[in-house]
Amino acid sequence: MAEHTAPTAAVLLIGDEILSGRTKDRNLGYIADYMTALGIDLKEARVVADDESEIADAVNALRSKYTYVFTTGGIGPTHDDITADSVARAFGVTIDHDPRAVEILKAWYAEIGREVTPARMRMARIPEGAELIENPISKAPGIHIGNVFVMAGIPKVMHAMLDAVAPKLQKGAPVLSRSVSANIGEGDIGGPLKEIQERFPEVTIGSYPFEVRSGFGSNIVVRSRDKRALDVAFADVEAMIEDLRKAGKETT
Amino acid sequence: MAEHTAPTAAVLLIGDEILSGRTKDRNLGYIADYMTALGIDLKEARVVADDESEIADAVNALRSKYTYVFTTGGIGPTHDDITADSVARAFGVTIDHDPRAVEILKAWYAEIGREVTPARMRMARIPEGAELIENPISKAPGIHIGNVFVMAGIPKVMHAMLDAVAPKLQKGAPVLSRSVSANIGEGDIGGPLKEIQERFPEVTIGSYPFEVRSGFGSNIVVRSRDKRALDVAFADVEAMIEDLRKAGKETT
Repeated sequence: MAEHTAPTAAVLLIGDEILSGRTKDRNLGYIADYMTALGIDLKEARVVADDESEIADAVNALRSKYTYVFTTGGIGPTHDDITADSVARAFGVTIDHDPRAVEILKAWYAEIGREVTPARMRMARIPEGAELIENPISKAPGIHIGNVFVMAGIPKVMHAMLDAVAPKLQKGAPVLSRSVSANIGEGDIGGPLKEIQERFPEVTIGSYPFEVRSGFGSNIVVRSRDKRALDVAFADVEAMIEDLRKAGKETT
Repeated sequence: MAEHTAPTAAVLLIGDEILSGRTKDRNLGYIADYMTALGIDLKEARVVADDESEIADAVNALRSKYTYVFTTGGIGPTHDDITADSVARAFGVTIDHDPRAVEILKAWYAEIGREVTPARMRMARIPEGAELIENPISKAPGIHIGNVFVMAGIPKVMHAMLDAVAPKLQKGAPVLSRSVSANIGEGDIGGPLKEIQERFPEVTIGSYPFEVRSGFGSNIVVRSRDKRALDVAFADVEAMIEDLRKAGKETT
């Protein structure tokens, strides 16, 4: 079945600022949507601080478990940008100024009239054996090593890097989904919904509550790579909701 | 030094819907702010799918490493709500309907005129030896077992549970922070900022870029539990920025 052979992915968000609450992450949701569109199953995400051994440990745990790992954050020019070094450590390789990256950055700073500082040249430090990920926004490249893609934390730059990376990725069959919303609480839906889930192992049924005036309603989402199974299971969900409405379970 | 004895925490967000992109998480940022206000160092976060062994493994990895673990999601009445069972498995204890929780739920459903369904009673299943976390919004309790706090995924309910939990937590000295924004790129700031960081190991200096019309500016954040060190280091950061302005590094 296609589902079992779909590529998998993990996201690693790097940065003290997310854990202190200063920055509210928007990258995970973006990458999640992107992976879903490519048919790649995002299985796990982690957030770690700017700490070389924490980053390296997380990279190694995730890269051994999933098809792809996408990191964001920590590849800028300041002292707290230690992702490239941490990834080199995770792979047990050296890191140094990469002639390809040096050339890209020098040309860019000449064009925009910025001084080539040692801090800016930090962004040309690339682990041995890695490929560069193109950054059309601010030029400092991302890093592709093994099955790990190291991207910027700035959303606009990360989006461009993900676009650059996407053609290299193995795609899965797209996950199809159908959803329905009802002003019926999960406590009434839970029993019959469980029976539908058990009858259709080829689909994944999720239930997500929302508030209504006098209680909660439910969004039911049915997902599958198998369109026929999806449609049949979804018809059962719709019939179940109709039955519960007739039984007076709808709230307002 | 107070910094070394501060309690630590991790967050575990549970749910397929976050990894598929359907739901954009808002709980991590809220808990991060909350921990910062309590002087508790949030060190790591993870997002895992609705999978019992993945949840149990993550709970065990995190609870052995940090003072506290806070989970959100998966404690509702539907078949995909498996957090309570997964936490019982992580702790190697049984799980069953808890008389205290059953009583709370029965009284509540009698009050609001809802049927007591088996699905609703799923929310009274509590691991052996756990305490309940009060839920003033929708009554179904959270779970406190060992150093793990199991909370709802619905933000409003999670917020109320965190308020109920907070008095039980060991607090740390608050982390103080001062920040300054400059229309100067990190490539110009990076060198002198690194020197300041090296002179003041008692503070943590972060630099976060933002876009301006013709490039990037930088937000510099200095954090410390030591007010004197914070003020002295911050004065150096301000002086550094003034020097860079005088040197014509400001962009527009």
